[in-house]
Amino acid sequence: MGVVLNLEQGKREPATIQALLDMTAADMGRVNKLILSKAGSDVEMIPEVANHLISSGGKRLRPMLTLAAAQMFGYSGENHVKLATSVEFMHTATLLHDDVVDESDLRRGKKTARTIWGNQASVLVGDFLLGQAFRMMVEVGSLEALDILSAAASIIAEGEVMQLAAAKNLDTTEDEHFAVIKAKTAALFSAAAEVGPVIANASKNDRAALRSYGTNLGLAFQLIDDALDYGGSSKDLGKNTGDDFREGKVTLPVILAYRRGTSDERAFWKSAIEDGNTDEAALERATGLMTRHGAIADTIGRASHFGEIARDALAPLAATPQKSALIEVIDFCIRRVV
Amino acid sequence: MGVVLNLEQGKREPATIQALLDMTAADMGRVNKLILSKAGSDVEMIPEVANHLISSGGKRLRPMLTLAAAQMFGYSGENHVKLATSVEFMHTATLLHDDVVDESDLRRGKKTARTIWGNQASVLVGDFLLGQAFRMMVEVGSLEALDILSAAASIIAEGEVMQLAAAKNLDTTEDEHFAVIKAKTAALFSAAAEVGPVIANASKNDRAALRSYGTNLGLAFQLIDDALDYGGSSKDLGKNTGDDFREGKVTLPVILAYRRGTSDERAFWKSAIEDGNTDEAALERATGLMTRHGAIADTIGRASHFGEIARDALAPLAATPQKSALIEVIDFCIRRVV
Repeated sequence: MGVVLNLEQGKREPATIQALLDMTAADMGRVNKLILSKAGSDVEMIPEVANHLISSGGKRLRPMLTLAAAQMFGYSGENHVKLATSVEFMHTATLLHDDVVDESDLRRGKKTARTIWGNQASVLVGDFLLGQAFRMMVEVGSLEALDILSAAASIIAEGEVMQLAAAKNLDTTEDEHFAVIKAKTAALFSAAAEVGPVIANASKNDRAALRSYGTNLGLAFQLIDDALDYGGSSKDLGKNTGDDFREGKVTLPVILAYRRGTSDERAFWKSAIEDGNTDEAALERATGLMTRHGAIADTIGRASHFGEIARDALAPLAATPQKSALIEVIDFCIRRVV
Repeated sequence: MGVVLNLEQGKREPATIQALLDMTAADMGRVNKLILSKAGSDVEMIPEVANHLISSGGKRLRPMLTLAAAQMFGYSGENHVKLATSVEFMHTATLLHDDVVDESDLRRGKKTARTIWGNQASVLVGDFLLGQAFRMMVEVGSLEALDILSAAASIIAEGEVMQLAAAKNLDTTEDEHFAVIKAKTAALFSAAAEVGPVIANASKNDRAALRSYGTNLGLAFQLIDDALDYGGSSKDLGKNTGDDFREGKVTLPVILAYRRGTSDERAFWKSAIEDGNTDEAALERATGLMTRHGAIADTIGRASHFGEIARDALAPLAATPQKSALIEVIDFCIRRVV
């Protein structure tokens, strides 16, 4: 896949999110402190489980979006730090519950909480973090921000149930799949970006721009994640190539390869995804079929499409360092596949 | 146990919550409609799972507390209906997650959602209902009510983790146990009762009275529930006598019998609770030991103690039909043990 993308992107420098990291560094220091403090509890198991995941080296992209989006509209105060922390807690709660639902043993190359403390602790500590997220939002006191984030919480869960209901269904259409990832992934990116302008009292148009940016960035992010599972380096990703395949997940590369395949190939996909025949040889064949049918390249192409929409969502906004940084995030999300 | 309590209570009429049922009937009609509408989703599995539990015949005591507490202070509007529905959704979400954590097969005499749709659906639909609960609270727009209910959400999860951490620990003290049930059960009763006066703009004192009433009613309710498991009729309770025992739960009757027992008896409790030797003969011995040591009677005694505090919390309030109805609820909770 790297090759495909390099051809498309010519000789551009490798994308980074350095500008975003720099401009949010001070605020992220406060977010990280708040994370530790709000994941605290006299009930020992809670900080143990929470910190295991929190310290496991996620990029914390979502809270940085909230911080940069608030800065972009001149917000001064402390509420963006609280909302950014809420966003990260919502994300962490989702991961804890996801690992239970997917029966995952590894996340970002580390044992999942559920393999160390059990499914029970993962469910309950997830609930606790979600409760803490809401408490922080309430402290902020913006009903608009609460509205956006509580709606996202419902939609994320709805997306997860959709995914569960469609599990192992190879006949899932691309549109149905987009509906799932829009709910389970893009909704939180969207909310994270929108609450920035909301607490900065920015205009309706500015809010809509950031919301649309977040939605489309989230879609691109998820699609690239799905592509990486069939070819990314496990070192960068913290997950092993083929994890989705072994878990029988119907992601876009699978959907495209299946729909474009011969009847023999479709029988292979059914045996792999539905019946769990997913050894190394099967993974090799799967990747081969994806390459033959351009399934990875086109997944990246779809991601680029959403990336373009995210970019255009920001186009009418005044040129600011924050705007440039957020655009760089789009490039980063898409080009990390190289 | 019935005998013990009859002696205490003399010849009083059997307690009912008829007054509460009557005064909240019209509002509960609206709550029930809102429950159906807000448990709805285009994702088919969500209303299926949600309605399975919602229609399984719980008493809906918590939302009735919210409604009566709002009426008590002359509230007129629709927000009490939304908050009552939020409270019931929080409760339902907790039950869905609890059944996963406890690996329960039956609830109120019916198969649990997790045995029909799996743990995954139960976790995710619980998350969805919690999200919907928050959305309704946000619609109400009272930051004070949001503060109370979001704090309760965190505290409930904290209580559940405490319970998990103390699971099968027979050395749990009574105080530690009270801390658990205060968090996992009483916090929601307390929040349900307090948000009534909050949206009715009642005084600080009135709010505090209802909060204290709710907390202590919740403690009494949980203790009686635990006593019933060792002697209630399964028809009334919708759960079978001995469920807690077979699940190795360290409830107050167990704590008291264990602490008061001989070393032989303590060995028996360890074998039952820690090692899972909980056949019919063991249950019979357990019940026998509880009777010998007055563990059930004293659990009911502790419940009565909290019931008295709940009653006194309401004492300074003007005599209203709502006040009488709420006091009747205390009697009902305690006397359902008969």
